[in-house]
Amino acid sequence: MIALDGFGAERGSDVLADGARIAAADGIRLRVFGPAGEVGLDGEDGIELIATDDWISNEDDPVAAVRARPEASIVRAAADVATGRSEAMVSVGSTGATMAAATFGLRRLQGVQRPALAVQLPIPGRAVLFLDVGANTVVRSSHLVQFAYLGAAFSEAVLGVEEPRVGLLSVGEESGKGTEQVADAHGTLSGAAGLRFVGNVEGRDIPAGGADVVVTDGFTGNIALKLMEGTARLVVGAIRDAARANPIAAAGGLLMRPALGGVRRELDPDTTGGAILLGLRAVAVVGHGSSSAEGIANAVRLAARCVEVRAVERTAALLERGGATRGTLAGRATAGPSA
Amino acid sequence: MIALDGFGAERGSDVLADGARIAAADGIRLRVFGPAGEVGLDGEDGIELIATDDWISNEDDPVAAVRARPEASIVRAAADVATGRSEAMVSVGSTGATMAAATFGLRRLQGVQRPALAVQLPIPGRAVLFLDVGANTVVRSSHLVQFAYLGAAFSEAVLGVEEPRVGLLSVGEESGKGTEQVADAHGTLSGAAGLRFVGNVEGRDIPAGGADVVVTDGFTGNIALKLMEGTARLVVGAIRDAARANPIAAAGGLLMRPALGGVRRELDPDTTGGAILLGLRAVAVVGHGSSSAEGIANAVRLAARCVEVRAVERTAALLERGGATRGTLAGRATAGPSA
Repeated sequence: MIALDGFGAERGSDVLADGARIAAADGIRLRVFGPAGEVGLDGEDGIELIATDDWISNEDDPVAAVRARPEASIVRAAADVATGRSEAMVSVGSTGATMAAATFGLRRLQGVQRPALAVQLPIPGRAVLFLDVGANTVVRSSHLVQFAYLGAAFSEAVLGVEEPRVGLLSVGEESGKGTEQVADAHGTLSGAAGLRFVGNVEGRDIPAGGADVVVTDGFTGNIALKLMEGTARLVVGAIRDAARANPIAAAGGLLMRPALGGVRRELDPDTTGGAILLGLRAVAVVGHGSSSAEGIANAVRLAARCVEVRAVERTAALLERGGATRGTLAGRATAGPSA
Repeated sequence: MIALDGFGAERGSDVLADGARIAAADGIRLRVFGPAGEVGLDGEDGIELIATDDWISNEDDPVAAVRARPEASIVRAAADVATGRSEAMVSVGSTGATMAAATFGLRRLQGVQRPALAVQLPIPGRAVLFLDVGANTVVRSSHLVQFAYLGAAFSEAVLGVEEPRVGLLSVGEESGKGTEQVADAHGTLSGAAGLRFVGNVEGRDIPAGGADVVVTDGFTGNIALKLMEGTARLVVGAIRDAARANPIAAAGGLLMRPALGGVRRELDPDTTGGAILLGLRAVAVVGHGSSSAEGIANAVRLAARCVEVRAVERTAALLERGGATRGTLAGRATAGPSA
């Protein structure tokens, strides 16, 4: 059972309802927290609509709003997971509100200090997981170490990558390169149990597939993710413009159109379903606000897949193997310098 | 007169010599610090070869090597500028060694605390300057403020952008978003004299041209620059693969080839000449080690253009207008918290 926030879809509640229907047609059972009647989902197969009028928008302060408004759709969705009625939560609304509602409403896995926001990057033919993309603007080295475990567990359990190669994002391959936090994390990860650490990776290594899991702080990660999306759009746009430059190029563009459409789909962030908040006792997925119905369905599918493959339990097991619950990682974190 | 490091070209000294010849053919006078005879440049028009056998490679520790080896080509090139024989220095060798040689050998502009490494991004149809891309892994807010002035001056003087829009790279548009350093810099820049500050810009705004000058720390900037290059390569590669997917697409690819070649050239980092170290009393340019002869010539042309338009003097004047030399920016920096 997936708890879906019925608000926040930029293309309107009809698109959200269509996304829910597409997911339900796959056999996924949904509880949707949205306005009564508006999304027109009452009584549809596999979908239960829980009428809710309040919702938290991008204009609200996420933390304050989540604390003050227990009837807001995202807060009710989180409560639904907390009480065990639903197994995962999904929203295409405010990322901040979803993170806040999940962090307050669900409990953290034992030993986890900070949940991290992860995304599968839209790289054709590869499953590259990138985290943190915005949950933690400033991190300690121990947080980066935990992100490595969280990401590796997710990559293996959900994306099906065997023994995923974990890289630490920095400005050079050598172990001392980067900030103090990165250099410290590199040291810890180099000897970390139960993890295939491949060292530092640079910006150019991400699209080249130099690692299956790329770990960084939420400031760098958020900028990098948006830059990657923007650059892909720039290049596709420049090529489209070039295809209009003259009649010969235009004829070529026409012949290439089906093949180019495939590339565009592969590079579309909607296809990977959105960002996942890792490190809690249930999964929370944040889809793009601008998602199509198919994009919204993909966000729900991602959450359902996390439940199906027991992603949370497997993450807990890997953290245990890495020593997080025996105090090794947590101890380092507590003893570490303030960032 | 431009001092060119005669070592460090990954494609060999012949390519470096050809690059020097192309630049000299434009009327640029060069002093090349390279191995006697090897680059075959002795006595060519506009080129003077100063025989040097020692050079600092990417394997050397840049700071230690620059300090210990006064005969190394890049150190001699910097000395040539310091003594006034040459007006700017260019290398396609180690970025670290070039930065170290320039920083030690040339003096900083009054009020400048840290030189920054800037690049013009290869965005078709736009002149976007991005800094710092690697000189300062950790920054104070006052450094970011100075980078804004350094970048604006360069954008106006060398890239010809009138009243360039300066943006601060962060994870959201609101003034409080990002790290403490970014939030503080935002506050200072919001009221900064002689600068057209447009606020925070996000990762996706860089390729979209949301600002003419984008300011960040050297860790984020280095990762972002390499990620952008890698992503452009990924997308162009995916489209090339798509053009081979079937005979019809292949025919289309053939017709589009000339137009696509133009796009590839526009996206090629070599076309913009390389990175420029800003904030010193002379300009140092670091081209790509893998540059073609044309790429090396572009690095030399960039340095020559900086000299021609008096980029350093204009930068000093803008810093003066912004209060840097009256102690405003410098004072903040000294009083600020340690990063």
